[in-house]
Amino acid sequence: AFMQNSRSMSCSCPSLKLREVVSIYFSMICLFLIILMAALQGSVPRRNDFPYKVPLDPKGLLELSWNVSYPEQVVHFQLFIKHLQFGLLFGMSDWGEFENADLAVLWNDGHNSYFGDAWSDAKGQLHMDSQQDYQLLGARKAHKGLYLLFRRAFSTCDPKDYLIEDGTVHLIYGILEEPVRSLQAINISAIHRGLQRVQLLKPNITIPELPSDMKPMEITAPDIVIPSQETTYWCYMAELPEGFLKHHIVMYEPVITAGNEALVHHMEVFQCAPEFDSFPHYNGPCDSKMKPDRLNYCRHVLAAWAMGAQAFYYPEEAGLAFGGPGSSRYLRLEIHYHNPLVFQGRHDSSGIRLYYTASLRRYDAGIMELGLVYTPVMAIPPGEDSFILTGYCTDKCTQLALPAAGIRIFASQLHTHLAGRKVVTVLSRDGREQQIVNADGHYSPHFQEIRMLKELVAVFPGDELITTCTYNTEDRSRATVGGFGILEEMCVNYVHYYPQTQLELCKSAVDPGYLHRYFNLVNRFNDEDVCTCPQVSVPQQFYSVPWNTFNRDVLKSLYDFAPISMHCNKSSAIRFPGEWEKQLLPTITERLREPVPRCPPTPGPQPAAPIPVNLGELRRD
Amino acid sequence: AFMQNSRSMSCSCPSLKLREVVSIYFSMICLFLIILMAALQGSVPRRNDFPYKVPLDPKGLLELSWNVSYPEQVVHFQLFIKHLQFGLLFGMSDWGEFENADLAVLWNDGHNSYFGDAWSDAKGQLHMDSQQDYQLLGARKAHKGLYLLFRRAFSTCDPKDYLIEDGTVHLIYGILEEPVRSLQAINISAIHRGLQRVQLLKPNITIPELPSDMKPMEITAPDIVIPSQETTYWCYMAELPEGFLKHHIVMYEPVITAGNEALVHHMEVFQCAPEFDSFPHYNGPCDSKMKPDRLNYCRHVLAAWAMGAQAFYYPEEAGLAFGGPGSSRYLRLEIHYHNPLVFQGRHDSSGIRLYYTASLRRYDAGIMELGLVYTPVMAIPPGEDSFILTGYCTDKCTQLALPAAGIRIFASQLHTHLAGRKVVTVLSRDGREQQIVNADGHYSPHFQEIRMLKELVAVFPGDELITTCTYNTEDRSRATVGGFGILEEMCVNYVHYYPQTQLELCKSAVDPGYLHRYFNLVNRFNDEDVCTCPQVSVPQQFYSVPWNTFNRDVLKSLYDFAPISMHCNKSSAIRFPGEWEKQLLPTITERLREPVPRCPPTPGPQPAAPIPVNLGELRRD
Repeated sequence: AFMQNSRSMSCSCPSLKLREVVSIYFSMICLFLIILMAALQGSVPRRNDFPYKVPLDPKGLLELSWNVSYPEQVVHFQLFIKHLQFGLLFGMSDWGEFENADLAVLWNDGHNSYFGDAWSDAKGQLHMDSQQDYQLLGARKAHKGLYLLFRRAFSTCDPKDYLIEDGTVHLIYGILEEPVRSLQAINISAIHRGLQRVQLLKPNITIPELPSDMKPMEITAPDIVIPSQETTYWCYMAELPEGFLKHHIVMYEPVITAGNEALVHHMEVFQCAPEFDSFPHYNGPCDSKMKPDRLNYCRHVLAAWAMGAQAFYYPEEAGLAFGGPGSSRYLRLEIHYHNPLVFQGRHDSSGIRLYYTASLRRYDAGIMELGLVYTPVMAIPPGEDSFILTGYCTDKCTQLALPAAGIRIFASQLHTHLAGRKVVTVLSRDGREQQIVNADGHYSPHFQEIRMLKELVAVFPGDELITTCTYNTEDRSRATVGGFGILEEMCVNYVHYYPQTQLELCKSAVDPGYLHRYFNLVNRFNDEDVCTCPQVSVPQQFYSVPWNTFNRDVLKSLYDFAPISMHCNKSSAIRFPGEWEKQLLPTITERLREPVPRCPPTPGPQPAAPIPVNLGELRRD
Repeated sequence: AFMQNSRSMSCSCPSLKLREVVSIYFSMICLFLIILMAALQGSVPRRNDFPYKVPLDPKGLLELSWNVSYPEQVVHFQLFIKHLQFGLLFGMSDWGEFENADLAVLWNDGHNSYFGDAWSDAKGQLHMDSQQDYQLLGARKAHKGLYLLFRRAFSTCDPKDYLIEDGTVHLIYGILEEPVRSLQAINISAIHRGLQRVQLLKPNITIPELPSDMKPMEITAPDIVIPSQETTYWCYMAELPEGFLKHHIVMYEPVITAGNEALVHHMEVFQCAPEFDSFPHYNGPCDSKMKPDRLNYCRHVLAAWAMGAQAFYYPEEAGLAFGGPGSSRYLRLEIHYHNPLVFQGRHDSSGIRLYYTASLRRYDAGIMELGLVYTPVMAIPPGEDSFILTGYCTDKCTQLALPAAGIRIFASQLHTHLAGRKVVTVLSRDGREQQIVNADGHYSPHFQEIRMLKELVAVFPGDELITTCTYNTEDRSRATVGGFGILEEMCVNYVHYYPQTQLELCKSAVDPGYLHRYFNLVNRFNDEDVCTCPQVSVPQQFYSVPWNTFNRDVLKSLYDFAPISMHCNKSSAIRFPGEWEKQLLPTITERLREPVPRCPPTPGPQPAAPIPVNLGELRRD
């Protein structure tokens, strides 16, 4: 009854349409705002100056374009709204929550529209920010919809604000379908809302020169029908021409069927194992029982794309080799369709367009796996909000496996399973941390893209590469062990580098003997019967630990202290010669400094009052 | 030879005198600066508006006065310089180091004087701050010397700046005896320099109404000669008149012999134990072999004062009882003389003036000991830069010992031995931290004063008081155990409260049985022969632990997990009835938020250029 009542009450307001042209008022205020902002905060970008674009909602009603100014440390946003009703929320939060979020809000009270920088507290209640850091630059009405322009410094030094960093940013949006009295009156849990993950701070890389004999090769789905279910991984087998010689892939880009931009979540092209002469054809869901088992041997990544990413360019000196002897002719295209609204009968021919050349570049590019070995000895207790595991690539291994001139890492793909929340790899030399190879403090296992690094990272013999993953197991009741299963965990950084070396794997795990001592110790300390007989498996032993703060803390201490077993491998099975068991942990004598966020220059941000925005009349659907 | 050379070189500069009157230039620039600053940053305090004063150097050539504006979150400083030579440094650092310090610098290059906000790096090299937050308000030449006025916000949000917080602030100073080409040319390790500890952020308390029949009683040294050695603790026995009835001390203040302001470091008046009918007279060093042993029974604090402190006022509803039956007539005055320049033949009659009344106030004040029991089971591994020990006053004890209406804590004295670096007591209710009782993040064992709290803290039955101490043992090679010795450690907060209750001690220590399990565990894990036979003492067991990160981390985990033995005592020997062994640690479900530093309001700080200051001509001694 209350619902009905409130509906009819709100329906007593005049029902207005937004289809009107922009009023003189609007133009004036907008012009005034643009001049004011331009005078205060620097130049306004031109309207077409937004190289990055991503749909926010599955219907494609909201679309975000943006650019990044590194000199100014500012992101300019252009938000396209197809059918504005009574406003919208747009913002950022740690992992996409609507609580403790940082939001720009456009709202209409039935008469006037306002824009403001707001934040939501732990209960989701909205508040106006004391410092207005989403700075409205203008609004433009077009035939297709409304364009809202605003800017935001990476760092605002307002403690309620999100700090825009390298790595994943969880963008959130909400649509106001009713007039709201005030910002505070918005019930964030009752509105139509959603989440989109992007890398906002794209690296500012100049595009390398491309060879004149470059040819395209499209690996695309053959006009399939996207299944009417939320999540589909589609597998399609493609084949290189017979006798295809060794070439270098120098770039690749996505090919997305028009209209499906919001459905194609990510795509990868894998090359199959050269050990098999042929692979069966297949075109269907990857988890289908009909899928031939042999397709599991198609795991060597040739190309990967995720929503919001652009074309991927190899550095001028290197290309990714494919074709020729020792290289399989068979490729597997995998497309993740994300179809939460369960559209039916959508046809799709998306995929990846590889550009390759026969004029081989100076270096073959290679991919190396850093982090933890896939083994249950590395485990995470249940109920942890941020438990850390670390994998080492030691000086001894790089000494042996890298050329004297070193290698250059130019891209990186971070990987964990469902509990992963952060991943970072740091380069250390003589015990002193030198630089971050790649870091994602808001990592999501649902958004694993190959990222070009902002700058090449040179790694020399004797250097150490330390990869640290942070996990959340608050929703789990038993330990999460390392392994291949989706509910087991991994901690991996696939680094893309050149020149290619024999080193394919440089990973570690705790020494199993020391883990055994840990189980013994837990046993004795807690007066409980934990079976530590050797015939019980390591996962079973972890599952039987009575988890309390002591057993949790001692496991942490063990991982920070016990010697490691190194996998310094030419392939997953073949180690470099040498003693790799019971190796000492690398010691770090000098850590990298946490970067100090730069605050916006004075004159500071605007005062904490909503800015009235004249958008003409608003409509109710 | 080099030294001589550089000396003669610098002597080639004209030798100038500062005794001249202030030039017209100076007045003009000074006036200009004052007007400018006043316009920019608010009102300039009047010259006599500095209620707090402390000598900086042992000769008394530098004297600091200051006031605190809590609404503005700013400290105004007035620095008096008796004989300005070529400038001086004044600033703050974590524990008085000259590295990583935050400094205001006045320097003269032989021609002109400059003022600037600077910082020193980890090697002691000076740099100009990018943000100028020591704001010069003016300089005044008087007959006695130069007065420099400047202000500094508590928090500047410049990462190179010191954050002024409650608790101890380590002030540092340096004197420039030669002209310097530039700020960067100052060699901070070669100048005359020193350290003074103060509580800068004095509580802003209104003085309670004092009784009309209040009488003074001076407990002062009888014209002694200060020994010509750096450190002396002087003991002097005083006596209350025979038949002296119960009175209330309502305030006390220091009495310092003129000229000895820089030598009298701190003073305490103790009352002797009532169990003894009489105590011998004594007037001499406290560590003398001539000192009668019985004086060790004079340990009940009546009054305590340390450099920089003012008068101490009891709250209007309470007084500290002394006199009457059950109270000893004997008092012991202890004065710490700090005489680093080894002055000879200085006479002194300093002490404390108590003000007392026969019209007893509503409540007797009491003192309660919070923190850790003095026992070796609480230990700190060697080589730690910040190891934390925690002592608990549990809900069970306060439930039993406190009146239903609760108690009010109005003052606190923190206490550790030499390794103590931080102390904090937090009040927790139903597992949720409520407020900080007293915190000192820059605690020094050399500066233990009774501090009035900014506001009364109400503690009710069932509340928990958790005291945490942070220790530095980087200079030690074996474990530091709890105990009474100067190289053993304590973690205590003496809280002053009313109404007095029977609860004198509410402290804890880890359960000894769990510590025994720890020694066993260390033994087995490390494959080393640590004797854990029960006949070996706990300190011996700690000394024989092979310290590594694992044994250190597991000790931490033990202290964070193992049950505790509670001392919920009426006196040091008599416990309240109840079971106090193997008690569970209090659980905290909600922590206090770290305060977010407020940054200075716009218009922001001045640009990063030294301000020229005309001080007339400077002299060389």
